[in-house]
Parts: sequence; structure tokens; C-alpha cells
Amino acid sequence: MRLLLTWNALAEDVDMIREATGAEVVLARDKEEAVRLAPTADVIFGLAAAEVLKAAEKCRWLQIIFAGAERVLAAEWGNPDMVVTNASGIFGPPVAEHAVGLLLALNRGIHLSRDNQLARVWESNINWQFRELTSVVVGILGFGDLGEQVAKRLAGFGCEIIGFRRNPTGEERYAKAVYPIAEFDNYLGQLDYLIGTLPETADTIGFLHRGRLQKMQSHAMIINVGRGSLIPHGDLVEALEKGWIGGVGLDVTNPEPLSAESPLWEMTNVLITPHNAGYTPFHKTRAISIFLENWGYFQKEGIPRINVVNPKLGY
Amino acid sequence: MRLLLTWNALAEDVDMIREATGAEVVLARDKEEAVRLAPTADVIFGLAAAEVLKAAEKCRWLQIIFAGAERVLAAEWGNPDMVVTNASGIFGPPVAEHAVGLLLALNRGIHLSRDNQLARVWESNINWQFRELTSVVVGILGFGDLGEQVAKRLAGFGCEIIGFRRNPTGEERYAKAVYPIAEFDNYLGQLDYLIGTLPETADTIGFLHRGRLQKMQSHAMIINVGRGSLIPHGDLVEALEKGWIGGVGLDVTNPEPLSAESPLWEMTNVLITPHNAGYTPFHKTRAISIFLENWGYFQKEGIPRINVVNPKLGY
Repeated sequence: MRLLLTWNALAEDVDMIREATGAEVVLARDKEEAVRLAPTADVIFGLAAAEVLKAAEKCRWLQIIFAGAERVLAAEWGNPDMVVTNASGIFGPPVAEHAVGLLLALNRGIHLSRDNQLARVWESNINWQFRELTSVVVGILGFGDLGEQVAKRLAGFGCEIIGFRRNPTGEERYAKAVYPIAEFDNYLGQLDYLIGTLPETADTIGFLHRGRLQKMQSHAMIINVGRGSLIPHGDLVEALEKGWIGGVGLDVTNPEPLSAESPLWEMTNVLITPHNAGYTPFHKTRAISIFLENWGYFQKEGIPRINVVNPKLGY
Repeated sequence: MRLLLTWNALAEDVDMIREATGAEVVLARDKEEAVRLAPTADVIFGLAAAEVLKAAEKCRWLQIIFAGAERVLAAEWGNPDMVVTNASGIFGPPVAEHAVGLLLALNRGIHLSRDNQLARVWESNINWQFRELTSVVVGILGFGDLGEQVAKRLAGFGCEIIGFRRNPTGEERYAKAVYPIAEFDNYLGQLDYLIGTLPETADTIGFLHRGRLQKMQSHAMIINVGRGSLIPHGDLVEALEKGWIGGVGLDVTNPEPLSAESPLWEMTNVLITPHNAGYTPFHKTRAISIFLENWGYFQKEGIPRINVVNPKLGY
């Protein structure tokens, strides 16, 4: 059994994985090496560029180390029957912290005080509408693992949380209610905050378009930590310029990176972080842990079980 | 019964308070007017400069609209038997949000991404150690209403919370344990975060001095939303320069405003907001609500009951 690692693993990581799996472990240090080694790999664990996927003719299982699988799914695979698992879940805690961090920074005008800090200016009375989460309604668009992690963290802030997901199970925690996304428009106008945690799929691209932005409350804030394609760039600029919404905190943009010409950079009520919400000191530890658990299933049952990506759904 | 309002009340606020109290309500629009009207006031509700306090010879009760009473207590009173109540509690929600907001902004490097945003730069790999609250130990120094509000909001983040207060009651919520401040030094070295919510009293001034800062973990972060006098400025600068601590988020500084010459302004691991953590759209509503509840007690029992400041303790 040949296992190809396509991430920047340390020698000690490779040794540990070799010992834990009993596999023949090979490490590709860059894309060229990965392409060269891919044809003989039974399993790949790490990143996977399109060229690697095409070359991986006998690969039965690809464990990716990020959550978003859209590029992998869009590529041509050397083995069309390959199973893909992602690292969904390991980013839940940092991305949820990041989402709440963006929201609170906007609530408290911390971004504007930071601007003043750079100028060594102490000015309490900034031109900003301070806000509180107490008694407001927060919608979470995408109530899978990540959405629930966000809700869990918001639970202590005194807000009412409403989740939206494709198929609510009734088992979701930390939300007052979780509705099917199909019913989203019935609730859009009630939200004081909307937190986007959706992956990119055919259904989510452009979902929060101008028609919907226009129906939001004018003070409502959007936080997006899912995928930037959720909101068409021009629609978002228009919504902010025309005051349809109160502000946005974006870790993801459309396109990405955000064009240097975008008016979003300079708007007072826009706070941008560069798609680093998932950065966590625990990334490697957690990814290896998921991989090894999946390896156990793969050995016993011939197929991994955790975070299996559904190519039709895209996540 | 003459009630003097010393805050910027609207006509409708005055009417409402007159109706609710049945008192003769007079409004002072500035300090001079307040000094002139103070001698005849039985009750004052609002701000109270030293000159007003001195002139308020028959005032039996002063309801202040901020939490910190140190300036009032330090002044000379026209009526030494005057009872003071503060607006503690109304700032709990915004200050707690602010504290968590500063902490998360630092955890996620949002302040540095904001700096990049101003330069229209998209750069994920900032020179910053991203952090997670999962599995860390957060100490809350001052576990009264505000400290508990902070703990309540942190409860969903997966951290362990330890509180410190003068006299733990055993009734505190949201913390794993609450210890007497006298035992603080036994736990200081275990903390990953320390959140200061203490008022300014003789005991808290300079409490977090260099001797204590030196005993902290080098990655530990301090968030201070209480009073800036908690940490001597020179000691804090030294602790950051020598790497005794990992960073600070300050809404309060020492002195205040922070001197333009302070090295704190420019340190990468320092995030400063200008003592506006208490700003909330609900300030007036909540202050009036406390005042009116106290008014009820004052009428029935001759003395207010809510948020009575103990002059000896200073809060």
C-alpha cells in the first residue's frame, strides 16, 4: 500500500504516519514531485493540484487537508472512482472564532480605533454606530459543523440564532430554529446579522444577490467566512453604497484575492481579512488525526468514512 | 422633592421621568447650571463634577450614569451622608463584547489584516501567531457582574475559565472556579489569557506590576477593560519589549488618554481602543431603568438599593 503525502510534512510527521499506518509512505516536496509520484499512489494525503489528480490513476482515496473541495471536484481525475475526504471540522473552531471576531470588531468599531492607533490618536467618539448582540437576531446561512460552531460561540451573547441548511435534521444545537435554505427568503428581513458559512456549490454561487441584499434591514451586517462567491461583488458594492445593509466583515471575497480596485477596501463599514480564518496552530495535528481515523476505516472496510465529499453536492 | 438631571436628557426623557417619579424635575444643560441648581436638589441623576458635589448640600442620593465612581468618591461632598449609586450592570453587555472582541481580534490577527486593508493589500500569511481559545485557560481578574458577563460570552469557546474576586460567593456562574484575589499569584503562571475587569481602588492600582507580568507565560495575552491604573505603563512596555507576555488588548490605559509618545501605539501585538468599551445604544434606556427602580426604593425606604457604591471599597 503506497501512501503519498503532498503537504509540507516534517520527517517526524512522516515517521509517525508510517508507523501508524504500516504503509509505504512517500513524501512529495513540491507539485512536480507530486505529479511524478502520483501514478503509483494508492492513497494521497495532502494537497492535490489538477495535474496531480490527473496523474493519480490508481489512487482510491484522497484525503485533502482543507475544507473546500471545489477545485478537486472540478478537476479531471486519473481514477474516476476515487473517494475524496476533506478536513471539514478541523477549521470549525478557528473559523468560528474568526467570524465572531469580525462581528465583534464591527460592533465595537475596533477597526476604526485600530486606524486611529496607527496614527497615535486617542478618540473615543468615533463616527460609528456601536452595537450590541443582546436581543438581536442572527441568521447563520449554512448550519453544518461550521455553522453550529459559530452558534455555539454566540450562544452566550444573548442573541437569538436562526440557522439555515439544505436539510435540517432537527438535531442541530445552539439555534432557536433551523430552517431549510429554501425558506430563507421568509426570514431574511428579520435578521440583524447574517453569517455565511456555506461552501461553494452550484446552488450557493451568487445566492446572496442584489435582490436579496435589497430585502435586508438597513442596519443588518453580513459576515462571510464561507466562500466569496456567495455574494456577487458588484451587488455587494451597490448594497453598501445604497445603504441596503449596514456593513460587512469578509474573510472571503469575490474574486479572491480582492482586486486592488475594489471600492470595498476603503468603506468604513467593511472589514476585510484575507481568507485566513482557518489558520490554527492545531491544523496539522487535527488533519493527521482525521486521516488516521479514516485510514482505520479504509483498512477495515476499503473506504474512509469521515468527511466523505459528495461530488454531486460539492461538500 | 427636587430631582436634578445632569445629563443631556431630551425633553421627552424629562417628561417621562417627571411622570414616573412625580418629582419636580429640573435639567442642567451644563456644569455651570448644575452647580447653580445643586444646592436645592434632593436627588441628582447624571454626571457629577467635583463642584457640583460640593454644592449639593442637601442631596441625599446621587445616581451616576457611569460605572466608575472613583472621581465622585475622591471629591468633597456638600452632604457627607449622600448615598451614591452607579450604573454598574448597564455596561456589562457592551464591555464584555468589547473584551471578547479585542481578544478575538488579536487571536485572529484582524488588527494586522486591517492595517493591510488600509493599504489595499491582500496578504494571508501575516507575521502573526494565530491562536485558538480551544483548550486554553482564561483568567478573569474581577469576577463581579462584568467579569461574569465576559465569562458567559466565553463559555461557548471551549476554554477553561478561572475567576478572581475579593470575596468569592460560590454562586458565580460560567467559571470552572472563582478564587479570592489574594490567591491570584498561585494561578498567574497557568493563564493563557488574563482579562482585567477591575474598578480602580487603592488595592487595584498597580496590581499587575512588573513582578507579576514577569511570572506570566510568554505567550499569554492580557485584555484590560477595567481601569488602566491596573498596570503601570512602564512595566507593561517592559513586559512587551522583553517578551514576558504575548500581547495586550487595551480599552483603558495608564495614563488616559495614552500619551502620544507611548511605545504601545506601534507594537504589533498591542491593540488599543480609546475607553469606549461601554458605548451602547441601550445606555440611556438602561440607566433610566436603574434610576427608576432605585427611585421606588428611595420613596418607600428612603434609600436606593441597586448598585449602591461602598465608599470604602470604592465600587
